[in-house]
Amino acid sequence: MDIKSIIRKKRDSNELTKEEIKYFVGKLTKGEITDAQAGAVLSYICTNGLTEDEILNFSVSMAESGDMVDFSDITKNIVDKHATGGVGDKATILLMPILASLGMPVAKVSSRGYGISGGTIDKLESIPGFTTDLTIEEFKENVRRIDVSIMNQGLNLAPAESKIYRLRNETACENSVPIIAASLMSLKIATGSKKIVFDISFGKGTYISNKNEAKRLAKLLVRLGKSLQKEVACVITNMNQPIGYSIGHNLEIKETIMALKGVMAEDLEEVVETLGSVMISLASDKKDLNENAKLIKEAIKSGKAYEKFKEMVRTQHGDVKYIEKPELFKEAKYCMPVLSTEDGVVESIDADMVGSIAVYLGAGRMKDEKKVNKTAGITISKKVGDNVKVGETLAYVYTDDKEKVSGTTQNLIDAFKFTTKKVSEKSKIIEIIK
Amino acid sequence: MDIKSIIRKKRDSNELTKEEIKYFVGKLTKGEITDAQAGAVLSYICTNGLTEDEILNFSVSMAESGDMVDFSDITKNIVDKHATGGVGDKATILLMPILASLGMPVAKVSSRGYGISGGTIDKLESIPGFTTDLTIEEFKENVRRIDVSIMNQGLNLAPAESKIYRLRNETACENSVPIIAASLMSLKIATGSKKIVFDISFGKGTYISNKNEAKRLAKLLVRLGKSLQKEVACVITNMNQPIGYSIGHNLEIKETIMALKGVMAEDLEEVVETLGSVMISLASDKKDLNENAKLIKEAIKSGKAYEKFKEMVRTQHGDVKYIEKPELFKEAKYCMPVLSTEDGVVESIDADMVGSIAVYLGAGRMKDEKKVNKTAGITISKKVGDNVKVGETLAYVYTDDKEKVSGTTQNLIDAFKFTTKKVSEKSKIIEIIK
Repeated sequence: MDIKSIIRKKRDSNELTKEEIKYFVGKLTKGEITDAQAGAVLSYICTNGLTEDEILNFSVSMAESGDMVDFSDITKNIVDKHATGGVGDKATILLMPILASLGMPVAKVSSRGYGISGGTIDKLESIPGFTTDLTIEEFKENVRRIDVSIMNQGLNLAPAESKIYRLRNETACENSVPIIAASLMSLKIATGSKKIVFDISFGKGTYISNKNEAKRLAKLLVRLGKSLQKEVACVITNMNQPIGYSIGHNLEIKETIMALKGVMAEDLEEVVETLGSVMISLASDKKDLNENAKLIKEAIKSGKAYEKFKEMVRTQHGDVKYIEKPELFKEAKYCMPVLSTEDGVVESIDADMVGSIAVYLGAGRMKDEKKVNKTAGITISKKVGDNVKVGETLAYVYTDDKEKVSGTTQNLIDAFKFTTKKVSEKSKIIEIIK
Repeated sequence: MDIKSIIRKKRDSNELTKEEIKYFVGKLTKGEITDAQAGAVLSYICTNGLTEDEILNFSVSMAESGDMVDFSDITKNIVDKHATGGVGDKATILLMPILASLGMPVAKVSSRGYGISGGTIDKLESIPGFTTDLTIEEFKENVRRIDVSIMNQGLNLAPAESKIYRLRNETACENSVPIIAASLMSLKIATGSKKIVFDISFGKGTYISNKNEAKRLAKLLVRLGKSLQKEVACVITNMNQPIGYSIGHNLEIKETIMALKGVMAEDLEEVVETLGSVMISLASDKKDLNENAKLIKEAIKSGKAYEKFKEMVRTQHGDVKYIEKPELFKEAKYCMPVLSTEDGVVESIDADMVGSIAVYLGAGRMKDEKKVNKTAGITISKKVGDNVKVGETLAYVYTDDKEKVSGTTQNLIDAFKFTTKKVSEKSKIIEIIK
């Protein structure tokens, strides 16, 4: 067995054996094949695809390339929620305390953000003191004690997946459904998740270009889950606009705190209630999604979710004062309004463009740099379906670098698409597949 | 323009523009794209091919990635000979002094060996003192003065080609005809060659798998030559056995000296006379190949070629004593015969296997290591068409490491394929395409 014969096999559309995949992933992890060779394998997968057996074997091999978390010593039904990436997505942060406050434990292993998809880890670490650098034992102890914890993927969980993720981005095969499926599943195997709700976003600013690709990925994940004795449900969401009102670290945490107090953008509310009710249906015998949505509303209204969030922040060494007084969060030096040059109804907001502007402003990570600017970002004042008149504020730009404002204004205006008609398809939720 | 859009374009079988190719080659040369990205581009070229315009643009861009040699200040018709790689090939070394002794200048820019294809440079540097580290001015001065010189490709001639050559090998796309054509042409553009004879070998131990691929490459090179105002002829040769009697540095130089004195294996003689007569037809108004072959025989018989070789060695600071007394060349510690276990007529000798054994013995370079063992190698006692009885010597193994002998004997025996019939197709020369 050698890497060149594996490259040739994938080039000629032949199926790799379990041993070949294990060999490739092992060599990749140890750095014993070159990046050019890994790039060649990924490129041929990108064009020729993978069989379901190959995807399973990639998932298992990538998971086994590092540490494996075992939750079998925790008796409760832990449910995991994973988004394939969205701009302004704070649903994960919201759902953790909501579910936990309902007695359903959430154990979340997450990665840092890359490009326009901000990372949940980075957002939570905006809270002074908050750490996700936990040992697996600390992580499990938190789940046992307060039903919720989050840790970062770190170096030892599925390192092969991290490498493939980087190479996938470098070689323009970030949209490959089989590779995305294998990556997602490898993380779920490594983190020992048995019940998983995937939030699969499609459209601008996501890895999935359209509804059909999203459905293809969803059905694949459900089938892979069956083979791996995991219960999987997928919620397909339309990235027709960034989620909620804000993009950027401090801004999103502040929005999260508001949301836990009951003030939430319509689209964020829809996403949280849908994903949350599917999560409840997996974690418990409560199968009626409408009833589950009511439980979520109640968890927020009663303040239990908010209290659980504070408990989670405290447990992970975050400063709870910031949650109680969000005005303590540092603000960017400049906050400039972006005004509409058109009349009309907002039909869509290009999440890719908004995400890219946020990155430009300093809120995102383009390479492996450690630092992101926590105060930079954008808030959206007009959402899909809203009426707008010329001169009204569409959004605000937050930055410490005044020169960046003028460069972003027109782009941000261009991200808004207007119509003269009523917008009929406002909903972000397209379908639930399980 | 960015690298990911170029990757996508090649993935989707679209033609790259001249500017895009220039961008890719430029970034590759400067190390501003990753190896994974270069590997992806090569992989998609490997499966989707290149148009002739793309090949031309790659050739020119790779040539322009480094220094360019300009021979316009030398008035004579310089002819260049280039082999795509063969095991035991010493034809280039022989043809240089032969042509020069006939008053036809040869200016050869060559690379070091890689894998089983031994490099002409490495072979010549087996002669103590012989150097190919010339400046372009020294190189041209040699050609002016004695009609022959050889220099190594060095760092500054087509550096992009060297990178692509390495990546091509790493990613198992070494057989891609368009990439081979672009590489060959880029070197010819960089070295200012206007009249070129390509020796295109196919079969085991070469980059070209069969006769049809060899013809495809030959016709392509002739057409590319026309577009680039170069006169190109291709000789297609069958690598049905290693060329001549020896594989390995000192061994091949000693065989070369014998050949210049008129003692030559039949297949080597055929290759030298065919290539040489085509070279003469390009360099002069002598168009009759049979007549040209006679000139070559005469150059050897008269001793003029041998004298020219000594002059060339002396000019490049080699110790001529070694040419006059080849027994001065250092020999390997062990020289072990390999005996036949079969009766029959030799039908073919697997050049790939023989080359690989030579590399294993120390005669080849597998990575970018600087040193090769000059004394290691193999001599072939029985050639295609020869009758063999059990117990007769097929070959000798030369090595300083006695333990390597036992590991190679059986493999070397396996490289010989026998038949009970007479071998009808002994000829190495298949076709001349121009």
